[in-house]
Amino acid sequence: MNPESTQLHDPAVISFASDNYSGIHPEVLAAVAAANGGHQVAYGEDDYTTSLRQEMGQLFGRDVEVFPVFNGTGANVLALQSLLPRWGAVVCASTAHINMDENGAPERVGGMKLLAVPTDNGKLTPDLIDKEAWGFGDEHRAQPLAVSITQTTELGTCYTPAEVRAICDHAHSLGMKVHMDGARLANAAAHLGVPVREFTSDAGVDVLSFGGTKNGIMFGEAVVALNPQATDGLIYLRKMNMQLSSKMRFISAQLLALLADDLWLRSASHANAMAARLRAAVEVLPEVQCTQPTESNGVFAILPDGVAERLREKFRFYDWDQAAREVRWMCSFDTQESDVDAFVAALRAELAA
Amino acid sequence: MNPESTQLHDPAVISFASDNYSGIHPEVLAAVAAANGGHQVAYGEDDYTTSLRQEMGQLFGRDVEVFPVFNGTGANVLALQSLLPRWGAVVCASTAHINMDENGAPERVGGMKLLAVPTDNGKLTPDLIDKEAWGFGDEHRAQPLAVSITQTTELGTCYTPAEVRAICDHAHSLGMKVHMDGARLANAAAHLGVPVREFTSDAGVDVLSFGGTKNGIMFGEAVVALNPQATDGLIYLRKMNMQLSSKMRFISAQLLALLADDLWLRSASHANAMAARLRAAVEVLPEVQCTQPTESNGVFAILPDGVAERLREKFRFYDWDQAAREVRWMCSFDTQESDVDAFVAALRAELAA
Amino acid sequence: MNPESTQLHDPAVISFASDNYSGIHPEVLAAVAAANGGHQVAYGEDDYTTSLRQEMGQLFGRDVEVFPVFNGTGANVLALQSLLPRWGAVVCASTAHINMDENGAPERVGGMKLLAVPTDNGKLTPDLIDKEAWGFGDEHRAQPLAVSITQTTELGTCYTPAEVRAICDHAHSLGMKVHMDGARLANAAAHLGVPVREFTSDAGVDVLSFGGTKNGIMFGEAVVALNPQATDGLIYLRKMNMQLSSKMRFISAQLLALLADDLWLRSASHANAMAARLRAAVEVLPEVQCTQPTESNGVFAILPDGVAERLREKFRFYDWDQAAREVRWMCSFDTQESDVDAFVAALRAELAA
Amino acid sequence: MNPESTQLHDPAVISFASDNYSGIHPEVLAAVAAANGGHQVAYGEDDYTTSLRQEMGQLFGRDVEVFPVFNGTGANVLALQSLLPRWGAVVCASTAHINMDENGAPERVGGMKLLAVPTDNGKLTPDLIDKEAWGFGDEHRAQPLAVSITQTTELGTCYTPAEVRAICDHAHSLGMKVHMDGARLANAAAHLGVPVREFTSDAGVDVLSFGGTKNGIMFGEAVVALNPQATDGLIYLRKMNMQLSSKMRFISAQLLALLADDLWLRSASHANAMAARLRAAVEVLPEVQCTQPTESNGVFAILPDGVAERLREKFRFYDWDQAAREVRWMCSFDTQESDVDAFVAALRAELAA
Repeated sequence: MNPESTQLHDPAVISFASDNYSGIHPEVLAAVAAANGGHQVAYGEDDYTTSLRQEMGQLFGRDVEVFPVFNGTGANVLALQSLLPRWGAVVCASTAHINMDENGAPERVGGMKLLAVPTDNGKLTPDLIDKEAWGFGDEHRAQPLAVSITQTTELGTCYTPAEVRAICDHAHSLGMKVHMDGARLANAAAHLGVPVREFTSDAGVDVLSFGGTKNGIMFGEAVVALNPQATDGLIYLRKMNMQLSSKMRFISAQLLALLADDLWLRSASHANAMAARLRAAVEVLPEVQCTQPTESNGVFAILPDGVAERLREKFRFYDWDQAAREVRWMCSFDTQESDVDAFVAALRAELAA
Repeated sequence: MNPESTQLHDPAVISFASDNYSGIHPEVLAAVAAANGGHQVAYGEDDYTTSLRQEMGQLFGRDVEVFPVFNGTGANVLALQSLLPRWGAVVCASTAHINMDENGAPERVGGMKLLAVPTDNGKLTPDLIDKEAWGFGDEHRAQPLAVSITQTTELGTCYTPAEVRAICDHAHSLGMKVHMDGARLANAAAHLGVPVREFTSDAGVDVLSFGGTKNGIMFGEAVVALNPQATDGLIYLRKMNMQLSSKMRFISAQLLALLADDLWLRSASHANAMAARLRAAVEVLPEVQCTQPTESNGVFAILPDGVAERLREKFRFYDWDQAAREVRWMCSFDTQESDVDAFVAALRAELAA
Repeated sequence: MNPESTQLHDPAVISFASDNYSGIHPEVLAAVAAANGGHQVAYGEDDYTTSLRQEMGQLFGRDVEVFPVFNGTGANVLALQSLLPRWGAVVCASTAHINMDENGAPERVGGMKLLAVPTDNGKLTPDLIDKEAWGFGDEHRAQPLAVSITQTTELGTCYTPAEVRAICDHAHSLGMKVHMDGARLANAAAHLGVPVREFTSDAGVDVLSFGGTKNGIMFGEAVVALNPQATDGLIYLRKMNMQLSSKMRFISAQLLALLADDLWLRSASHANAMAARLRAAVEVLPEVQCTQPTESNGVFAILPDGVAERLREKFRFYDWDQAAREVRWMCSFDTQESDVDAFVAALRAELAA
Repeated sequence: MNPESTQLHDPAVISFASDNYSGIHPEVLAAVAAANGGHQVAYGEDDYTTSLRQEMGQLFGRDVEVFPVFNGTGANVLALQSLLPRWGAVVCASTAHINMDENGAPERVGGMKLLAVPTDNGKLTPDLIDKEAWGFGDEHRAQPLAVSITQTTELGTCYTPAEVRAICDHAHSLGMKVHMDGARLANAAAHLGVPVREFTSDAGVDVLSFGGTKNGIMFGEAVVALNPQATDGLIYLRKMNMQLSSKMRFISAQLLALLADDLWLRSASHANAMAARLRAAVEVLPEVQCTQPTESNGVFAILPDGVAERLREKFRFYDWDQAAREVRWMCSFDTQESDVDAFVAALRAELAA
């Protein structure tokens, strides 16, 4: 017995807090093990990273450039920097992860200004973009030269292919480029039921943060330059922004495992289905007010006073808008039907308490 | 059969290029597997990260703060930022990894100026520090408020505990703080044969980049605040600099595996021994001129014209100083005696060619 | 005749575009000439800068630190940086100059995130601050550790001393510090008719951007640390952010001229009076809709379609909100009653056209 | 009598500390007065700035772009940023102002890494550039994409036109661009006795920091894009880096005054002549060791122990290398022969003491 393989945690505990509370899908862990052994050139000149680029090219239907990185914030900042000159600004939804959850990394590390637009459902539109897409050529204004959209959004909603295309066409007509934060891209693909390229490369997205961590891998995302001509210097930006993994084979092998046999879609479909099950179970409860459509793996709801606090003693989850008593429940690749049912039962009990 | 567990590379290939060409030690991979399953709170509020802090406290003989991060560049930039105000500068050896190999991350992301001092062997001394430690209070000069030393150095040399203590005492007497880049800390501990605290915490180092990746883990280092009062804001710096892993349990579990049963020292001792074997075999060759003492897992040597190029067809390794025909050969936790012997044989053959 | 003293412009042209279209007040130019000749120590160790600190101390009723700088953007970024750690964010009105008109300098150079709050009239309140002053201690959120208010605001409105005090008390109770952008501080003092300290130092403002350029000097502002304990490193920040004037005596002499014989208040009172005259003349016109109270030297109004464009052929001024046909008319220390009357006549003519 | 025109300093005091201890040349002050009065469009759309571009075009023999800024550090950082992508580095002499005297502004604000090369006399050469101009395409290395040279250098030496041309040709052949820090460009032109274009635009310099402040103006320099195709975004960089003067007419009018009737060359020639007079007087003193050729307005010398300290009680000047007892004496447009003679007399007295 290896002392280092001691398990310190209780694997029976599950939560509805975040898809990154879960661990590693067994197929992914097997892929890591398979990629182990011997020596591979560091920093991306390995067989797994080479293969990843080919697989991504297949997925997106064109010759793409792929830059595995450590995490989503890193992917987003690199992707946006690669689109922008030093004087650039980014139009995004005010609820965007880059605006709310990255402690200013886009501003501090990326040197960009975010022009955040309030939305009802986390989704930008051409009209909403126009609220900040002005002042081109005015030296006093941070130049709005990119749009960033999140698919699925931080509110669990999903852009249709036509909506993405309208945004890209509009942005391009203004000389702006388009980034998609795809931390939960798989959940969108699963929800929409169309090939991912229909709402990414074919719709005009220039650069994509391809998410892995929230979908059952240990760590790792990839910046995918869908339109390499729109980007510049990603190879250098990755290193200087501290996102270059030396043993990159292990990020690439994980991402390859996701793509193999459509594991990424299988896992996302499952997580979405669990969220749908949860949604169906709670929206019939008169005390619970669902606040967003459930188009991916999260459910947003307003609870009566005190319920969240008591329920949280059994299952961890986050407030979304504490003042409004709105909470967020997230499902994951490893959420089981029985977990959902137990959670709903606990919720019902608290509502009845 | 899982298609995603296909092995794409030839694990029989080894090299002498870098300790990050190697993969994952089996004990580490077992620890990752043991940490898997169920849900753990993301971003460091997990059982493995909690345990890691305790183990590090044991190792360094005091109450330390531990911040697991993705890679060494990230660890170095965070550690240095935590020591410095915005107007700070860092005295380092001109050969330091932060100066040579991080594409300006300390300057660009960290916002600091590096005051690099040439050295003979990669090691700073109080006298060498004084070449740049001046101008305190002069607003025109980036204020030299930290010293960064690498243990073992990028040239494979090793500071003794007394040398580290002299540097720390000198720096502190000038109001400067001390960072140690410990990407190969284990190799130093193995070489010196003393408890690691003797040349770190007990010697006065304020903050340490504790290396993991070069010593048999998949990814992950830790910023260890040995003197937490000397640092500020590491919790925020880690996030804003894109070094916060959501599924942090898997970094912490790997680092715990390193510490368990002294795996980190076992692996480093082995790598050092392989380098010593290589050194012994090549320094008797009249055509080969070793350029640095071999005090860790690397050998530096000057080869006759053309030999490196031909030898590289069989074993990958890097030039250190191309103009001088100086090369670097690195050994790893998984380098075998037979690998060394095969390499020496190939070298001898090329020298005789 | 000196060829270099040729006047290239037509000094008879005036405008209502901005208070920085005007030139130098004669008393200020005389002060520059008086400060000329011989050698004075560069970078602030001169007699004028020493005197300026004393005069500012008198004005604000306490021992302040004074850092003359080149321009308002520089003053704002330095002042805010001096209040904040690297992970800080600033709550400000969405109309704030730092948010709208500085091409991202606070983000890009200052490394801070702005948390902008929409307001009706450009003025923050404790309640409005609370919309962004949350998430303290959450590493994912840029830490809201400062509030920035503009006096008078970019909309020409003015905080009362009680309003400033309420903001400062609230901010301090949350552990936040307060910056005031006083590009038009003199206009506020003139409007309020109280000593400036009542709505700055005595009200709890920690650091002030003291404006000069918009009030009849050639160039120059000053960062005034009203509460020096709240700031850090301004001496270094000024240099590293490229705001250190070598021949600082000429900034200080200009600012001293402003303070001497209350020139700053005389000029601001005059400009305010001209704006009041303009306001009175236009608000009786049924086709013109004034959109903000006129509490300083600017008038904001909505004009019928096409009027602004035609009027601009005679007098230059800016759109404020082009979509709403809202324009901004600014008066200056050198605006004459006859200028206002001519402008109103031209406006009336266009309205009648 | 205007209280604000009180003279607080003693204009009889002169020094040999720096050419920025002096004030404003009378022709420059007259030009400021002539540019005063009435309204001119702010931020550079004024008649003086328009004329300045034309005059600069004449001077450099081509269509240049001219961006007046506040100070030399600002000019240098903007100029270099305009040449470089985010991952760029700058090869410069280790004695360069950008490396020694700007508190890390190039790194912190400009986001660039400086690759500093030791020199004997402050001058780079193609061979010296090659010490750092390597590693193109290697993501780990900050990419050396620009060279910065100072004319005249910080050591008072002067590049010949042929030397500049050799550097530019070499840099361009490597894909690098060339910046010249011309804080004392006029002193070089005066020393070399050739049209300035011979060692700037015609020699291949891409962008120039054109100095004004050290040559008798109050404040102001200009970034001159000699090869506009080599630069990008200067209009935005100037604003975002806080170097945009609202009342720009007063910088441009001063720079125009410098160019009119060759005032800039007259002043620089005079300052050079005063330095030559000083050099001639001191180099015959056996106790004084001059350390650099006197090719502009500064003299560098090593003094016997204690002499500098005593002499400084009468005339202010700076240590250059305190450890070596090397001092720097600078002459200015307003240094008189009698000042030099008095200084030499005082030096002789101290040497004899």
